[in-house]
Amino acid sequence: MAKTKVTLGIDIGGTNTVFGLVDENGNIKTKESIPTHSMNPAEDLFQRLFEVFSPVYNEHAEKYQIMGIGVGAPNANYYSGSVENPPNLNWGTVNLISLIQKYYDLPVAVTNDANAAALGELKFGAARGMKNFVQITLGTGLGSGIVVNGDLLYGHSGFAGEMGHTTIIAEGRKCGCGKRGCLETYVSAPGIKRTVFELMAETTEASTLRDINYNDLTSKKIYDAAKIGDRIANNAFKFTGKILGQAMADAVAYLSPEAFVLFGGLALSGDLILEPTKKHLENNLLNIFKGKVKILLSGLPEGDAAILGASALIWHELKNK
Amino acid sequence: MAKTKVTLGIDIGGTNTVFGLVDENGNIKTKESIPTHSMNPAEDLFQRLFEVFSPVYNEHAEKYQIMGIGVGAPNANYYSGSVENPPNLNWGTVNLISLIQKYYDLPVAVTNDANAAALGELKFGAARGMKNFVQITLGTGLGSGIVVNGDLLYGHSGFAGEMGHTTIIAEGRKCGCGKRGCLETYVSAPGIKRTVFELMAETTEASTLRDINYNDLTSKKIYDAAKIGDRIANNAFKFTGKILGQAMADAVAYLSPEAFVLFGGLALSGDLILEPTKKHLENNLLNIFKGKVKILLSGLPEGDAAILGASALIWHELKNK
Repeated sequence: MAKTKVTLGIDIGGTNTVFGLVDENGNIKTKESIPTHSMNPAEDLFQRLFEVFSPVYNEHAEKYQIMGIGVGAPNANYYSGSVENPPNLNWGTVNLISLIQKYYDLPVAVTNDANAAALGELKFGAARGMKNFVQITLGTGLGSGIVVNGDLLYGHSGFAGEMGHTTIIAEGRKCGCGKRGCLETYVSAPGIKRTVFELMAETTEASTLRDINYNDLTSKKIYDAAKIGDRIANNAFKFTGKILGQAMADAVAYLSPEAFVLFGGLALSGDLILEPTKKHLENNLLNIFKGKVKILLSGLPEGDAAILGASALIWHELKNK
Repeated sequence: MAKTKVTLGIDIGGTNTVFGLVDENGNIKTKESIPTHSMNPAEDLFQRLFEVFSPVYNEHAEKYQIMGIGVGAPNANYYSGSVENPPNLNWGTVNLISLIQKYYDLPVAVTNDANAAALGELKFGAARGMKNFVQITLGTGLGSGIVVNGDLLYGHSGFAGEMGHTTIIAEGRKCGCGKRGCLETYVSAPGIKRTVFELMAETTEASTLRDINYNDLTSKKIYDAAKIGDRIANNAFKFTGKILGQAMADAVAYLSPEAFVLFGGLALSGDLILEPTKKHLENNLLNIFKGKVKILLSGLPEGDAAILGASALIWHELKNK
């Protein structure tokens, strides 16, 4: 019987690293998770990873043929195959391709998690068949992966697609990157929290959120308050959607995507975030683009998206070979 | 003797249409100009154009072989081959490819003038050998053509690359497009004029520009005043460069270009515009991009750039066939 062709997708996070075999239709055949141990060198992670993976794979070796390995990792550079001084890993700069090929002599590709997520949507999710779209992950930051002409936009450096660090309000909120007014300081889980605190300071509106301290407040709690009519929570969503819609209109002027695909906790807030986003996107579009740009929700299950994205990266490479 | 391969480049402006034969090294072999007569239909323009061109070409037909025809025109859509309701031509929507192929059965490609200019820089000018750059034309507006992975970024609609209509100051200056705060309301020949008038209103600084009325003021007069130390003129250049540098930093976050290539009158103002642009670009870049993005001046002679761009468009097509 012919073996099923699969790829190994690896998603490296600051806390956990998940990996698994995925077939060309996005079926996850195996899935494992190990702690990343971010203070240790990269070699340590991959040694432990393949200690877990090898017996799993050997068990299935008669069924599956691994075609390649895709890796999503912070600060990963597609061109060089290296991870370059990731903020949350004590790795310095390390070439993941050569490191991984010590274990398996297979094609390997690496990119950052936002780019991998975009390829996941392209191959398995909401962007199937699209040539031009922007994937946006709303989490602790705002990650973006841009697809142009059916390929990821890496740019000259390999680090293109940093929509979260475009300036949306000059001299605005301080960002972790060192700049001010970056989109992700407004549109992300911490961003909407900062907006709630701004609104609590600026208005005298009653709100249950006034009983929650900054460190305890989550976007889930803001969502729950908004659902039961809390004005400050609702206004925080409106403001977040307004800023996101404005930023999307600029992205359209640059890129003219067919759609934006939204992923991550805030994206699950439904019309609370989508309605103001759509309105302010349309209001800020050039006439030639009005009514022509879709906003879609991710087509991938939240828990599997990272592995699917990493797997899609190497499927995409193999297709283009 | 083998014929020299050439393409016909046609640049359609609101007032004049220029066209000529260009070889693969950017040598202009013939060059003609006719009035566009913008109130007449497109058919009229092309009938007159080929009445002028045909005898010119027949004269040289033993020397030159035409490989294709490239057209730069306002609101031209590369995908459809049509010009769609150009603001300054009374054409409605008209397919230029089929119109032109009635005269010559050759490959034809059309795009807007800003995109053609980018391909001109790629094939013949300052961006030779680059895979990722942004061409910016500073004229009556701010036109931009974006090259990604060695190809023009057209996006889903064919109209990508409208950097001039990204919002740089929320609720800012009214733009001809109907929006507010668009980059080109600050960074263009009319943009710097508006800045001079704003500075004359806001400050009490003496300036020779206070003797010139709005309709008579040109960016050339602002340049001349700046060169002899006029403070308002100098500050207008500083402000223009600041806004351009900030906008470029956002473009880098999206696109990670190797360089920006500047073309048009304002770009010829040298360090008056370049020095503040470079400073504010660097100040607003993410750390990973700092010191790595070039700002270059166009490598094309101003009077020939339009024909060279239109010619480069079809050379680029023929190469990719």
